[in-house]
Amino acid sequence: MKQKIILDTDPGIDDAMAIAYAIAHPGIDLLALTTIFGNVRTGEATRNALALLDHWGSDADVAEGEFTPIAIPGHEPSYLVHGRNGLGGIDIPPSRRSKHALGAVDYIIEASKRHPGEIILCAVGPVTNLARLLERDSGIVSRLKAVIVMGGAVHRQGNVTPMAEANFWNDPHAADQVLGAHWPLVLAPLDCTMPVVFTPDYMQALARQSPAFGGPLAAMAEFYAGFYRSHLGISGCVPHDVMALSWLTVPGAFRLQKGALAVLTEGPAIGQTLFQPGGTRSRARCFDGRPDHLVMVDTDPGIFMADYMTVISGHTR
Amino acid sequence: MKQKIILDTDPGIDDAMAIAYAIAHPGIDLLALTTIFGNVRTGEATRNALALLDHWGSDADVAEGEFTPIAIPGHEPSYLVHGRNGLGGIDIPPSRRSKHALGAVDYIIEASKRHPGEIILCAVGPVTNLARLLERDSGIVSRLKAVIVMGGAVHRQGNVTPMAEANFWNDPHAADQVLGAHWPLVLAPLDCTMPVVFTPDYMQALARQSPAFGGPLAAMAEFYAGFYRSHLGISGCVPHDVMALSWLTVPGAFRLQKGALAVLTEGPAIGQTLFQPGGTRSRARCFDGRPDHLVMVDTDPGIFMADYMTVISGHTR
Repeated sequence: MKQKIILDTDPGIDDAMAIAYAIAHPGIDLLALTTIFGNVRTGEATRNALALLDHWGSDADVAEGEFTPIAIPGHEPSYLVHGRNGLGGIDIPPSRRSKHALGAVDYIIEASKRHPGEIILCAVGPVTNLARLLERDSGIVSRLKAVIVMGGAVHRQGNVTPMAEANFWNDPHAADQVLGAHWPLVLAPLDCTMPVVFTPDYMQALARQSPAFGGPLAAMAEFYAGFYRSHLGISGCVPHDVMALSWLTVPGAFRLQKGALAVLTEGPAIGQTLFQPGGTRSRARCFDGRPDHLVMVDTDPGIFMADYMTVISGHTR
Repeated sequence: MKQKIILDTDPGIDDAMAIAYAIAHPGIDLLALTTIFGNVRTGEATRNALALLDHWGSDADVAEGEFTPIAIPGHEPSYLVHGRNGLGGIDIPPSRRSKHALGAVDYIIEASKRHPGEIILCAVGPVTNLARLLERDSGIVSRLKAVIVMGGAVHRQGNVTPMAEANFWNDPHAADQVLGAHWPLVLAPLDCTMPVVFTPDYMQALARQSPAFGGPLAAMAEFYAGFYRSHLGISGCVPHDVMALSWLTVPGAFRLQKGALAVLTEGPAIGQTLFQPGGTRSRARCFDGRPDHLVMVDTDPGIFMADYMTVISGHTR
């Protein structure tokens, strides 16, 4: 039986890589994309989500999410990283479909009641929708099979500031609530994403193996890699958002650590992930009452990249 | 010519290890110990400093420092780690000498004027005295040869909370000021101290090689190791404070990284070290106008431990 997934996303180039993977993977039943601001504005995320699904032949729903963080003013989208349209400037034909009548939060609640205990919610943008979900329906914690969040930086530096990763920085209060909630959660922070680089050669191979998926992804990745080259001196790009899905499909590619999590919501380190390893105690009170969650702290790039290539190239439209 | 050192210290068992090293090292001219709260109260630090100097035949001055942090209420001393008297319960005969007529801050200012550009100030406790020094005499930044601070945790977790190391946690505002000051500063954080463990066997060898120094240090270390065993599952103890001196004498034992530093002064991560690698930029504004300093980010335990053994055992009273 296929694993039902709702992917909460702000596409975004690495989001597009994750969307392609979710569509192409024979073990994944992609119910919906729920959208959020971050790499782009929420409306642009919805437009891109619909366009990518159409382009790749998926009829998954698109439910539009929140437009602003829960407690801070919104930051500007990351057009510098993801291009003027969020997809590296690559034009994907607009969809003729409409977004779902329900907003993201209501959609997830409704889906979780239709399929209790069956859905895994993968969030690869700022987790504002997830925080609103917890506020709106506390019972949600027992109706989702699991929650996987790409965000944060646990044992390494952030990417927006040395302290903060972009998704958590974009809505630190939401991230703090989501990581403190008592649902089965796996965190995919920069610790597990940064060891993986999709080089230009890899992207060209992906385009050759799968013109339908790999073609547009390789074109987008060219723009994305420009940012990595100029800002980080890396040749290629990091497919952050894919990790949240790969945890389900190739768990053996990741090293895990268990512990309690929180996020700083003020001060110069706002958006920073706080982590207390499971089984340890300290004088910090901020972890009191918080559950231990699983954290993906490292990745075997070889296993991860081979799996991505296989899944993407295995699919023919 | 010997290097003139003022050691700012809260003895403390690893402080005693550093004091022994400073006395025993043929290349070090230990001018004074200046005292501070932390492992013990300031008055106890002064008592222990005088007792240890007498016991080991040094006539270095002892100038007493601040009694409270500059902006937060003081925490309780770490008797749990360092024993009821700060020296693992080992009785060192009290000194008949008195502390210096000048307090720590005035003593350092006066010494820096007598020996401009010649003194290296090594601080291995909370850096309250150093912050007061900067407040009192802004010219001090050009009259010290260098400042070396044992404190903080840059790429690894703290030891009081997962975010904060004890010295910075004890006076985060002072630490933030000291790390932001434009003086030549080297930071010795937990990153460079935690790779080194003085095992019971090592301490016994130290005691055999040098009954005068190693004997009492090994006795103190037994208590200290009890804490490490019960709280961290480590067999032995970590000689944190020695690193600040070893940077001068065996710099080859350490790996360095350059960058701007700050310390969080509020919130759940209070006392945490913030670090922005040199040559990088981010959206964090807290590093604006701050100088790059050197950070000791890793240690070769073999080089470090061989040097410590050699220096301690080379000395005969």
